[in-house]
Amino acid sequence: MSFTDRMAQALRHARDKNLTGLLIAPGPDLVYLTGYRPVAITERLTLLVLSAGHEPTMIVPRLERPDAEKAPVKLVDWADGTSPYEAAARLFNRVGTYGISDSAWAMHLLGLQEELPDTLYVSLTKALPMLRAVKDADELERLAAAGAAADQAYEEILKVRFSGRRETEVAADLAALLTEYGHSQVDFTVVGSGPNGANPHHEAGERTIAEGDTVVLDFGGLKGGYGSDTTRTVYVGDNPPDEVREVHDIVRQAQQAAFEAVRPGVACQEIDRVARRVITDAGYGEYFIHRVGHGIGLTTHEPPYMVEGETQELVPGMCFSIEPGIYLPGRFGVRIEDIVTVTEDGGRRFNNTPHELRTVN
Amino acid sequence: MSFTDRMAQALRHARDKNLTGLLIAPGPDLVYLTGYRPVAITERLTLLVLSAGHEPTMIVPRLERPDAEKAPVKLVDWADGTSPYEAAARLFNRVGTYGISDSAWAMHLLGLQEELPDTLYVSLTKALPMLRAVKDADELERLAAAGAAADQAYEEILKVRFSGRRETEVAADLAALLTEYGHSQVDFTVVGSGPNGANPHHEAGERTIAEGDTVVLDFGGLKGGYGSDTTRTVYVGDNPPDEVREVHDIVRQAQQAAFEAVRPGVACQEIDRVARRVITDAGYGEYFIHRVGHGIGLTTHEPPYMVEGETQELVPGMCFSIEPGIYLPGRFGVRIEDIVTVTEDGGRRFNNTPHELRTVN
Repeated sequence: MSFTDRMAQALRHARDKNLTGLLIAPGPDLVYLTGYRPVAITERLTLLVLSAGHEPTMIVPRLERPDAEKAPVKLVDWADGTSPYEAAARLFNRVGTYGISDSAWAMHLLGLQEELPDTLYVSLTKALPMLRAVKDADELERLAAAGAAADQAYEEILKVRFSGRRETEVAADLAALLTEYGHSQVDFTVVGSGPNGANPHHEAGERTIAEGDTVVLDFGGLKGGYGSDTTRTVYVGDNPPDEVREVHDIVRQAQQAAFEAVRPGVACQEIDRVARRVITDAGYGEYFIHRVGHGIGLTTHEPPYMVEGETQELVPGMCFSIEPGIYLPGRFGVRIEDIVTVTEDGGRRFNNTPHELRTVN
Repeated sequence: MSFTDRMAQALRHARDKNLTGLLIAPGPDLVYLTGYRPVAITERLTLLVLSAGHEPTMIVPRLERPDAEKAPVKLVDWADGTSPYEAAARLFNRVGTYGISDSAWAMHLLGLQEELPDTLYVSLTKALPMLRAVKDADELERLAAAGAAADQAYEEILKVRFSGRRETEVAADLAALLTEYGHSQVDFTVVGSGPNGANPHHEAGERTIAEGDTVVLDFGGLKGGYGSDTTRTVYVGDNPPDEVREVHDIVRQAQQAAFEAVRPGVACQEIDRVARRVITDAGYGEYFIHRVGHGIGLTTHEPPYMVEGETQELVPGMCFSIEPGIYLPGRFGVRIEDIVTVTEDGGRRFNNTPHELRTVN
């Protein structure tokens, strides 16, 4: 879909929600709608204003205007020492409700609220959570390619030595592999060995990995502008103990059950519930301490969220993670994660490496 | 100064401004006050709440709690599927005015405004612009070291070939040099050759540099957690034309005059005015299209801003750029930038490479 078509579609969605307009700050929303990514996101206001009956117009700092010319929108610039909110306000209705990018800076929202006291604002994810959620054919191809590259990195990391090396060293190997297989940006390379694996947001630390460790590997980034994000849990040594095998198998079953629940019309929260039920029934419910998934696209974390309370129904073209886990504090953790897309017939995985517990040296 | 002392000082400043409390989002403010930097800044709310008479308390997503334990504050966590704003609201007064980090996400500010309709918010830079502006001895040392490393990178880049190579290649050399001299992060490596130099925020493109080009080199990043940012303009070939020499000399004089104006008690806008007057008097006023400088510290762009309208007075320990420029559209640009700190006696430069127009091959 062209940028112009995307902006027109966003405006139609906005009208359906009775919004006066949309305010798009630098970041993935702006890339999605215009292709424009400022050199840096700073305190200087850049804001795309979309409202019915008006040409899409972007407020830009004067010195960034030459760069911004590439965006297929009208430009209005403001100079250092003048108020960007006054410049913006001339494009707004004095009364109205605007959707604003989630990650727009609070200082800019406060500036607009002060300049236009009769306007109301709602976060874009709340107003139009599905703006970027349904991917078109080109986007699906890019996500599939990013997933395949992450899979290649996983197959290769199984060949490196784990035992006797620091988590940070294995993490560096993972980052190098993601780059080798075409990622332009590595967003995270979690290596959670032994008790560190029980902290789901541990990255990689100075701990030396030892035989007998369970190791959570969660890695991803951007390839061709779109995200990868996959997790596998491996065991260092030849004979994983029964408890590790059992916990791993429960997580595997939870991931599989949630994947099989994917089809158009199912509520997002149902995907979380299905995975949680498997883990709870096995007696580990209290150790699964996060939602089961998040959307992925131009970023590695975006709507739709697979979480209790999210009643949004799945639509073909949505892409998200399914990543149940069990975290035993002070001992070890297990997580298995694939990126999945919704098709007319059910789910399709973008990660396709085996879910079995693999052993490493 | 310890983190505890910094939080106490921030609260004293807040009280002086009649603020009920301060709300600190992930980013440099949070690093400054607590040392804590979440693995990633996501849609999940993390927020440090400082208010008089209460222990500093940070709201964190439950799964990030283990990481957050390192911050010297009390933690309150919230789980996926619950409202982080309800959790936050229990720490707030129902009526009051809070300062909030500039770069806090708009979605979080909207969540708080909805949860607590009788609270008011003001951006931290507006409320306490000088929170991080006056650097302590350790910070000054780190900024001096970052500046010295950038100077080394500049001296080395003069030795590489410019003519016949693309801007992106010279930019890659600059990035490698910054890393070699100890930068952990490269934020920007502008190589603006010929007409590209006339776009002050051009980064580096596919243009091939040729003899006779003027080239703006503006580069910086973080070393030891603190920023560098310096600009020099070079000429490719042995004999810069008179016009290039003249424009370069005006910019050099403007930079020097602004530097000499630095002393405690002078308003920030005066630094901008001094540089602008030199350029305007020389007939190039309309081609100097940005403010003359910005603060630097944990980030490469922060208050205080040297801009018309900023009446804040300089205080010893403040650190900022002085970077006048002249941009002749379609032809070439010249900019010279040093980081400067305010001492009791005047300014002190953290960049000390010569300002003369250097030639390269």
